[in-house]
Amino acid sequence: MTELDRLRVVLVSSRNALNIGAAARAMSNFGFRHLRVVNPYEPGYREARSAVGAANVLADAEQFSSVAEAVADCTLVVGTTAVRHRELQHSLCRPEEGARLIRKRMASGRVALLFGSEKFGLSNEDLSHCHWLMRIPTREENISMNLGQAVAVCLYELIRDAKAVKRSEKTPQAVAAEVERITEMLLEALRTSGYLGRRRVADADSRIRRLVRRLNLPARDAAIWLGILRQMLWKMGAGKDPKEKGADGN
Amino acid sequence: MTELDRLRVVLVSSRNALNIGAAARAMSNFGFRHLRVVNPYEPGYREARSAVGAANVLADAEQFSSVAEAVADCTLVVGTTAVRHRELQHSLCRPEEGARLIRKRMASGRVALLFGSEKFGLSNEDLSHCHWLMRIPTREENISMNLGQAVAVCLYELIRDAKAVKRSEKTPQAVAAEVERITEMLLEALRTSGYLGRRRVADADSRIRRLVRRLNLPARDAAIWLGILRQMLWKMGAGKDPKEKGADGN
Repeated sequence: MTELDRLRVVLVSSRNALNIGAAARAMSNFGFRHLRVVNPYEPGYREARSAVGAANVLADAEQFSSVAEAVADCTLVVGTTAVRHRELQHSLCRPEEGARLIRKRMASGRVALLFGSEKFGLSNEDLSHCHWLMRIPTREENISMNLGQAVAVCLYELIRDAKAVKRSEKTPQAVAAEVERITEMLLEALRTSGYLGRRRVADADSRIRRLVRRLNLPARDAAIWLGILRQMLWKMGAGKDPKEKGADGN
Repeated sequence: MTELDRLRVVLVSSRNALNIGAAARAMSNFGFRHLRVVNPYEPGYREARSAVGAANVLADAEQFSSVAEAVADCTLVVGTTAVRHRELQHSLCRPEEGARLIRKRMASGRVALLFGSEKFGLSNEDLSHCHWLMRIPTREENISMNLGQAVAVCLYELIRDAKAVKRSEKTPQAVAAEVERITEMLLEALRTSGYLGRRRVADADSRIRRLVRRLNLPARDAAIWLGILRQMLWKMGAGKDPKEKGADGN
């Protein structure tokens, strides 16, 4: 069992079956399997078209008639709310911190994450079962999120990898020797074409060198640019026919 | 103008007007205003019921007939994809890093964030306008997210506050003196009720002391628990009538 299997997404009094399906889809996208539904308004949610790829999550969904039953086996119960201060009955986290606390708890026990109805959110009675509340930082002018979108954002925050901030795939950059070969060939082309005078001027060379460096050329593009320049030099009558050397970079 | 105003959310060939509305709703929730729509399949998207609270975003949406026009004034163009390796034509980021790069660029210029159609994503032609691609880390078994949910997750990552991880409101905890008053009163109640013997035993006191500490009592609850214990002591015949002292904590 992975830790994500310890989360129970609990949808309380959801009004729209499409939203239950969308929640199930986000669960499936992010690797969560256990959906619990408390008193849904539309009983046909298991057939929701919006649950693309999440048929299993919906088929296995458990239905309850009270929040108390739906969270009975959980060691941490977290409510979600759009409201900033519900009379300060609970402490309130942003998802950035809430997710950290939930992940910590998921290492040892089940955690319930509650979402209320589209119209009214969680009732005060529902909230009284929660240890604390989590609030996605929406704007004051439009605080209320769509249910499926709120579920997606909370689950994303749970699988988010803080270490990935600087760990993404990077395009390998060309090494300085390749960049310099391109610079030399570009300088030759600029002189041949008359853009630069025939006589070498250190300052002009430096400017062009910096211009090429600012391109941040990816490694795999270096040969292509060399081939392009060689072909143009040949056409301008200053180089060998590149065909004789074999085509570069195409 | 805030930096968020520099983002252009570009929906390319969206098939479902409800998804355009949902994207607009997430934009409004998170404070983004500029929606661009390229060749939508359903022209009536401006009336989408799903755009709760986002009528302005939809009314102001700009419509284009090509990606080139829709991104013409942007200095960075980022495509989103569900696919891990689209023949490696582009470098690929997770949102954790991509959002950082987008925010950086938004400090100085406009950034376009492209989302493709629900069925096919962005075409290779669309992608060729992009500087790099961003991919929400969905599971291999169900990579494809709902369009509105994908927009919500990407925008959330853009407004996410890394510093908020440890900055949330905390419930103020009771100070040691209050906790000790509660411990003393609980010990008295335990002796009066016969749960503990009349004679003080250091070991029993310590166990009860640790039991109370483990409750991690919030400051605002300390007076309530004192009131509860005082009332029960009085009822058991060992304390003064709390009414005479004024009610605590209610």
